[in-house]
Amino acid sequence: MLSGQTVVVTGCAGFIGSHVVDRLLSTGHSVVGIDNFSTGQRRFLEGALWHPRFRLWEADLLDVDALGRALAGGELVIHLAGNADVRFGTEHPRKDLEQNTIATLNVLEAMRANGMSRIAFSSTGSVYGEATVIPTPEDAPFPVQTSLYAASKLAAEGLIAAYCEGFGFQSWIFRFVSILGERYTHGHVVDFYKQLRQHPELLRVLGNGKQRKSYLEVQDCVDAILLAVREATSRVNVFNLGVDGFCEVDDSIGWICGALGLDPELEYTGGERGWVGDHPVIYLDTARIRGLGWAPRTSIREAVLKTVEYLRENEWVLEARG
Amino acid sequence: MLSGQTVVVTGCAGFIGSHVVDRLLSTGHSVVGIDNFSTGQRRFLEGALWHPRFRLWEADLLDVDALGRALAGGELVIHLAGNADVRFGTEHPRKDLEQNTIATLNVLEAMRANGMSRIAFSSTGSVYGEATVIPTPEDAPFPVQTSLYAASKLAAEGLIAAYCEGFGFQSWIFRFVSILGERYTHGHVVDFYKQLRQHPELLRVLGNGKQRKSYLEVQDCVDAILLAVREATSRVNVFNLGVDGFCEVDDSIGWICGALGLDPELEYTGGERGWVGDHPVIYLDTARIRGLGWAPRTSIREAVLKTVEYLRENEWVLEARG
Repeated sequence: MLSGQTVVVTGCAGFIGSHVVDRLLSTGHSVVGIDNFSTGQRRFLEGALWHPRFRLWEADLLDVDALGRALAGGELVIHLAGNADVRFGTEHPRKDLEQNTIATLNVLEAMRANGMSRIAFSSTGSVYGEATVIPTPEDAPFPVQTSLYAASKLAAEGLIAAYCEGFGFQSWIFRFVSILGERYTHGHVVDFYKQLRQHPELLRVLGNGKQRKSYLEVQDCVDAILLAVREATSRVNVFNLGVDGFCEVDDSIGWICGALGLDPELEYTGGERGWVGDHPVIYLDTARIRGLGWAPRTSIREAVLKTVEYLRENEWVLEARG
Repeated sequence: MLSGQTVVVTGCAGFIGSHVVDRLLSTGHSVVGIDNFSTGQRRFLEGALWHPRFRLWEADLLDVDALGRALAGGELVIHLAGNADVRFGTEHPRKDLEQNTIATLNVLEAMRANGMSRIAFSSTGSVYGEATVIPTPEDAPFPVQTSLYAASKLAAEGLIAAYCEGFGFQSWIFRFVSILGERYTHGHVVDFYKQLRQHPELLRVLGNGKQRKSYLEVQDCVDAILLAVREATSRVNVFNLGVDGFCEVDDSIGWICGALGLDPELEYTGGERGWVGDHPVIYLDTARIRGLGWAPRTSIREAVLKTVEYLRENEWVLEARG
């Protein structure tokens, strides 16, 4: 990925997408950003929108014609758009398939129509289901899916890999743990922060608080994506992304309450799983991406604290659709 | 699966589907068959159509309303409909996703609307991509997809598993090798048979003839499906189906030519792969289904010969869309 190349970023106004855009612009790239603003925030693009090398396409990835036009002239697609709402898949079963799988096919077809062949994609560590190997490597035993979200992301991975085999594409597929940091708009830190703002004396926690989860700070995530696209040369490159460790939900609660100076009563819904399809343990083996020289610079604790700090300074995010 | 239950069979006029229908009817079940006859053959249902316990719905699985009506009153869905054309995925990239993935979501949603929760599904051994473990077990290392066909089947597997987790469904997912036997309408035996009928002195072979493939006779396949649905009690039951062995393409050519009394010149296109996305070796570990007491009764050689015999007696199949 040479400086000066035009990179297309889908989901450019999202949490991760907007950071990728900023980084690409600051390193000399031209960026075409695509977002339908269903959950993306225009304020995340405040810097980019003034930049002469940034062009915004307000378009939905289900609109094949608009997508085809948006990609013209691009050399690499970083495909980050998608339904990121892991927990509510069962309320609208078609949404994940449409926004994560069909949208990805549309991106692949638009690339083909434009003679493009390089795509980076944000999948999820959830594709490992209830992993039997912890920490979980990329070639873990063939998993059974446990959520529509993960199933739809795995389906997109499969389509991308098939395009690599069938059409000579090259791909970088990233299986993330949950990402934290500035512009974070949904997930447990927001949930807890919102609750504590409303009733500082009480915190309701999904599950038993013992779920072990791994996280990654968003700048570390962007570092890994861009490094992999630059350095990994296989036809299909699959990378786990996460810190080398995990915390319990209770640890995170301690850090958040400490930062806010609160000592709420904790009310647990109980059970090993916070919700249907939740995984008691998410901890990915990241030896592969570390082999390229990457290492996260921010610990889980620091990432949680940074996120709380961001939310305090940007409470508008709590009211934004996301 | 008790005798007397109503079973819905999608793809009921297909190669495997029509055999499943016949077997279910002969063992006391009522059967609702669904087919859009895009590749299914009405002649395969000659017996069933006269049967008082058989009801045919001519419908497309992309027609959500028709599907919802067809499933009413069913207790189990055996979902066999799909695009089975492995080789031509790159010519119409949306077809696999529509007919294998979206159609499966439609079946799942129609089941949910009808209060049904048990589904058997025909996936494919191709989901293992270029397997690194041979013979390949169900929990082989997480594979990279190499065809749109396999990617679309894997996507359907994921949706089904997610419905099991999210909606309390129970599923039986079968990863097949290629199936042979009566009513076989497409695949290498038909290709070779057609060629030899046209020019008995010459046979063009995709690849170098050394590809190692496993096969299964269709009655053995039906045995395995119905046994698993009866005996396997996990929420998500995944089974490889195949004989315990393989042949080379050249072996199969020898058997076919022997049966036809021909000795053609062989012209190989060369290479380890017959086509884009072809796998040099397909050989599945079937210990799991054997653990239920199943064993195939027909060898690969016998299955090939039975298929040739069927084609000789039913040349109309060669002209049929399939």
